[in-house]
Amino acid sequence: MTSDEMIRTLEFMGKKARRASAALAVLPPDAKSGCLIAMADALLARNKEIAAANEKDIAAARANGMDAAKIDRLMLSDARIAAMADGLRQVAGQNDPVGRVLSENIRPNGLKITKISVPFGVIGIIYEARPNVTADAAGICIKAGNAVILRGGKEAFHSNSMIAAILNDSAAKCGLPDGVVQLIPWTEREAVKYMLKMDKYIDLVIPRGGEGLIRTVVAEATMPVLKHYKGVCHLFVDARCDMDKAVNIIVNAKCSRPAVCNALETLLIDRSILPEFAPAIASALQAKGVELRGDAEFCSLVPGAVKAVEEDYSAEYLALILAVKTVEDVDAAVEHINLYGSRHSDGIISTIPENIAYFTGNVDSSTVYVNASTRFTDGGEFGMGAEIGISTDKLHARGPMGADELTTYKYIVYGDGQVR
Amino acid sequence: MTSDEMIRTLEFMGKKARRASAALAVLPPDAKSGCLIAMADALLARNKEIAAANEKDIAAARANGMDAAKIDRLMLSDARIAAMADGLRQVAGQNDPVGRVLSENIRPNGLKITKISVPFGVIGIIYEARPNVTADAAGICIKAGNAVILRGGKEAFHSNSMIAAILNDSAAKCGLPDGVVQLIPWTEREAVKYMLKMDKYIDLVIPRGGEGLIRTVVAEATMPVLKHYKGVCHLFVDARCDMDKAVNIIVNAKCSRPAVCNALETLLIDRSILPEFAPAIASALQAKGVELRGDAEFCSLVPGAVKAVEEDYSAEYLALILAVKTVEDVDAAVEHINLYGSRHSDGIISTIPENIAYFTGNVDSSTVYVNASTRFTDGGEFGMGAEIGISTDKLHARGPMGADELTTYKYIVYGDGQVR
Repeated sequence: MTSDEMIRTLEFMGKKARRASAALAVLPPDAKSGCLIAMADALLARNKEIAAANEKDIAAARANGMDAAKIDRLMLSDARIAAMADGLRQVAGQNDPVGRVLSENIRPNGLKITKISVPFGVIGIIYEARPNVTADAAGICIKAGNAVILRGGKEAFHSNSMIAAILNDSAAKCGLPDGVVQLIPWTEREAVKYMLKMDKYIDLVIPRGGEGLIRTVVAEATMPVLKHYKGVCHLFVDARCDMDKAVNIIVNAKCSRPAVCNALETLLIDRSILPEFAPAIASALQAKGVELRGDAEFCSLVPGAVKAVEEDYSAEYLALILAVKTVEDVDAAVEHINLYGSRHSDGIISTIPENIAYFTGNVDSSTVYVNASTRFTDGGEFGMGAEIGISTDKLHARGPMGADELTTYKYIVYGDGQVR
Repeated sequence: MTSDEMIRTLEFMGKKARRASAALAVLPPDAKSGCLIAMADALLARNKEIAAANEKDIAAARANGMDAAKIDRLMLSDARIAAMADGLRQVAGQNDPVGRVLSENIRPNGLKITKISVPFGVIGIIYEARPNVTADAAGICIKAGNAVILRGGKEAFHSNSMIAAILNDSAAKCGLPDGVVQLIPWTEREAVKYMLKMDKYIDLVIPRGGEGLIRTVVAEATMPVLKHYKGVCHLFVDARCDMDKAVNIIVNAKCSRPAVCNALETLLIDRSILPEFAPAIASALQAKGVELRGDAEFCSLVPGAVKAVEEDYSAEYLALILAVKTVEDVDAAVEHINLYGSRHSDGIISTIPENIAYFTGNVDSSTVYVNASTRFTDGGEFGMGAEIGISTDKLHARGPMGADELTTYKYIVYGDGQVR
């Protein structure tokens, strides 16, 4: 496969996706749901084919010495295939995000200006994760009326290809043109590079994976990218708060799933509550095996805490490590968060209304919590149903993104001959 | 001024803007309106200083041999200064775009998830136009709670500097930190280049001017850019329509102000109506001095029409020239528009409901018209009050952008100890 052939094939995929997206965009809600349910049925009906493709990936992974935990994540059992199908059914059952009337306005000259939600067109998804993402991401894109071009990780190539082919076939059987779901058929990095220049065919790219992957996509893409680089999430324990709740929230935010982007990474404590609170939170966290890296004041109160260095305050540990800093007041906490944070999820634990108002008003993050764990930043927890990712950008979508966030809008203006 | 000094000064401006934006973001609506009114008053009170600064620009323009029409555009009479002040007062009187509750949702676990509009922070405006844009753009940014860094055209440098200084001083007198309105104090291109790398301080850039300026900004900016490159606007005359209205709409769209982005550039005519309609529209347009460039069918019916070449169908003439093409049906019209258009403003003139529905559903443009002139794509005409520009992007804002579009949102989640 030469570069020219690769580019030609990608262009052909782009054109197919564009044509499919035009048909999807005007598909009535029921037909769209019907298509998603047909896709779910097809995954179940063809689960043997998926298992056979998956077996190839597993065999290659074993031959390459992949560790057992990673092999387990790659594996598609019947139960996991059934879960993918269930996911598509759930997405099918949600409200249709397309055609919502966002505003309507009759002007003095009689023009009726309506603002309605419409699909983007074609969405590119670049992911490293488990093969079930293929069905999840495709389903939510289609729900919002978009065709999708997928680029999955090398390790799951055969599984991803089979799932994408089954979904695309189902769409064709529902009367849609070929190209609703396509997987890029090469695992070379070169293919991603070309994909990211196809702004003529792809309206939006969403990368899902590590910070390195996302930075590469942002640097190379000529189309808009929705993403978050990382989650350096903070909780601030205010001068007055319910300390039992504070301990419970912090332990949950740090320990319930430390490897995810909404896990707590830095704890800020108001100086006036430090002597009482530091020992309590430290023993709770240390009992869970958390390594504490604090400033001098915190360390002087907490046996076993180690001295934090500057880098600790911008670290996304994704592990049982927590940076801790003593701050003068809510003002200093906000300043720290806006300087060191990643604009993902940050919270205050407090019973002082004016401090809560100051914190929520001034922290420049996509999601700001009051007396709750940062772990709730998630489409499901927000009631969006499926989630396609989390954005720390300020344009278009911030925080968890569901199917609504995969639409844009247009104005339709109805007149009867008006001129200006 | 060395590059290093320039970069240091720009960084200092960025920090001042960031600090000012934090204060603006939490300013109550009345205080914000009061500040805009104080700015309007200051422009009137200091109109002699503005006139003196403007005189320097005019003198330089005359010395450089600028033509009379351009010099007129540059000139700031007392009436024009009063109009700038009026503009600020109008913006002051509009609804506050910040703090709107966009959604509110109480989850089964008791978490209250609110989505509220918040300012972006710092907005950069790059413009070539008349000096009144300095006040207009600053006013709408501030209304939406944003600090603004302006980079105006070289020709209006002294006028722009004085207006920006007066606005910033007024803000300071209202108790805001220095840095609400700043103009970049150099006219070298180098300064724009550095400005466009300041994503740490500038959240969003809006370029206003010719396509060349906008392409440069998009290529160099490391922060998001909201823009439109050009307006290649279409009207499609369907097989059945009110022909008198059609002629009236087309003449208005082409002739009322040919140099603007919402002016008509290409006319599509359904083949079945061509014999009757072509002579009627041609004589109306030719009477207004419009040069017609049509396909063979159109030219055979219209004396004086010249043969269009391929480039005519993607041209933004901004002049009294119109490309005309005969199409088979509404389907072909939509295909043409999606292929050749600029996703700005396109319309159908028709009395056939199913064709109207097909057209509005399938044309992928930010504003789609039914039986009205494309000239209405404008913040004022849409009822937005002031307008900061028009977007043909699909992310964040499409079509005319008012103060609402200069806000983003954040989620504030209120709990009482919830953990996951």
